[in-house]
Amino acid sequence: MTERILTFQALNPDQAKQIEALGAEVVPFEKMAETSGITAIFGWSRKHGLNVLQDPHNAVKWIQTVSAGVDYLPLDYIKNHGIKLSNAVGVYSPAIAESTIGYLLYFLRGFNDAVKNQAGHFWQPPERNDLALLASQKVVIYGTGSIGQDIAELLNGFGNYPYGVNRSGRAVAGFAGTVAQKDDAGLIKDADVIINAMPSTPETVDYFNEAYFNQLNGVRIFVNVGRGTSVDEQALVNALRNKHVLNAALDVFNTEPLPKDSALWELSNVLITPHQTGFAVENTAPIFDFLADNLKSLQETGELRRNVVDPARGY
Amino acid sequence: MTERILTFQALNPDQAKQIEALGAEVVPFEKMAETSGITAIFGWSRKHGLNVLQDPHNAVKWIQTVSAGVDYLPLDYIKNHGIKLSNAVGVYSPAIAESTIGYLLYFLRGFNDAVKNQAGHFWQPPERNDLALLASQKVVIYGTGSIGQDIAELLNGFGNYPYGVNRSGRAVAGFAGTVAQKDDAGLIKDADVIINAMPSTPETVDYFNEAYFNQLNGVRIFVNVGRGTSVDEQALVNALRNKHVLNAALDVFNTEPLPKDSALWELSNVLITPHQTGFAVENTAPIFDFLADNLKSLQETGELRRNVVDPARGY
Repeated sequence: MTERILTFQALNPDQAKQIEALGAEVVPFEKMAETSGITAIFGWSRKHGLNVLQDPHNAVKWIQTVSAGVDYLPLDYIKNHGIKLSNAVGVYSPAIAESTIGYLLYFLRGFNDAVKNQAGHFWQPPERNDLALLASQKVVIYGTGSIGQDIAELLNGFGNYPYGVNRSGRAVAGFAGTVAQKDDAGLIKDADVIINAMPSTPETVDYFNEAYFNQLNGVRIFVNVGRGTSVDEQALVNALRNKHVLNAALDVFNTEPLPKDSALWELSNVLITPHQTGFAVENTAPIFDFLADNLKSLQETGELRRNVVDPARGY
Repeated sequence: MTERILTFQALNPDQAKQIEALGAEVVPFEKMAETSGITAIFGWSRKHGLNVLQDPHNAVKWIQTVSAGVDYLPLDYIKNHGIKLSNAVGVYSPAIAESTIGYLLYFLRGFNDAVKNQAGHFWQPPERNDLALLASQKVVIYGTGSIGQDIAELLNGFGNYPYGVNRSGRAVAGFAGTVAQKDDAGLIKDADVIINAMPSTPETVDYFNEAYFNQLNGVRIFVNVGRGTSVDEQALVNALRNKHVLNAALDVFNTEPLPKDSALWELSNVLITPHQTGFAVENTAPIFDFLADNLKSLQETGELRRNVVDPARGY
């Protein structure tokens, strides 16, 4: 049968032509209301997505997300209706890894003070010993999947071999060593940098809480490029105020957009980026490739072949 | 004879002990007025340095700077009086290279907008295609000495092989290619990033002038970690306003401190750091090593052996 793909994520004309050349139809988001018989969705809409699935005139059997995480989807509905699901995991990792190195250099190389001084036309050099090299920092990365591995690989280019924390403590290339989550206490007590790159799962909710931060003795930088749910934000604010954590770079939050009255906005030792760390113009092509490859696979075998997600597990 | 070393750059107690163990005397800056017979200087003071050289009670024969460049010294006096000169070239290169990568990621990964939005509590994500990967940028580095090479090495870790510009066009490891200065026009016309890492010499003064910037067609980032004298600042301001250059990260300036009324402070597409790019706590040890090694050499052979500078050439 001819697949009819609703594109919440717009395709450019060349991409649309490629999909049509595979014998499928492309339904732009704007034509959603006047189209029935939708069998697949590219991207997602929090407002309209579930309606499209539930509309009896459609027969959606496959969703290809443009995101790595899928926790914002109606996973129970997807599971119960046997809808196939594939994500874009891996695509964002190079961009997230580059951003993460940027966050670290922003604080280590004195940019955070420089931008504040620039606003007041203040020429105020730091003390020579206030700045430090990324090469020398002890970095601990939570999560050793594609994001953690890509961060580690870039760190290696600075001569830095980080430590990893994962479920089992299994060894991973690019890391000086890894431990299981339950064994992280010894690793973090003299860490200079802690990076969260874990996905959202029940075990990671509020992992970075008051008890966690109280173990730290002046960690220079805490980075969250994983999920907002992993961090108890009030505990982090307290840690930033009482110097258990000296600086933080945060891309994800409990509530997004971050509420106007969040204390995080005002802390001078925090860099906030609005859930953009994985953005890059270079991502467009590989995300489209997932769509095209999975479409071909579905046509040929009835199954997806790339980045298949189990909706019961969420990854 | 016993060397008597005036330390404009303070030594810590352990370092002072090591120098004394070599049979030399350490004269802290604070005791300058009450001390005569100074034979060597570590560091420099713009206010007091020349007085120390000219004081007939002293007999300075060696200056060990803590900087890489020596253009702020009275080079004619030093040359005419046969004073030996050594610098700290190379020490700062790793820190400058790390800072340079930080400057590039600051703009490429959208931090420049993020910090401005954070000040107003604005959650304003960029368009997905507004951000880009460092891996994909065409980078051109002016100067392929220790700074340029260290920048190239870090870029290589991002999968980026930059182009170099030097006097002769000689090939240098870590670069995709190099050209001589006179042949740079073809290289820069489609560059994404241009980095100045050249020392201050007569040939580099105002190298980046109006004619230069007019060749550029929207270079994404211009970085100056070389010398302020290499850039015609008014021409750069014009280039930033008329979009020949989209963003700039500047650590060095024609006049330092940068005057309060410089237009550069106010440009929203400029990051200003106050001549700090080479600072790092990790530099202390290797700079001291130059002092100790050259002291030993002077005692043994009458000549310096590390980082000897010809005051007539300035490097």
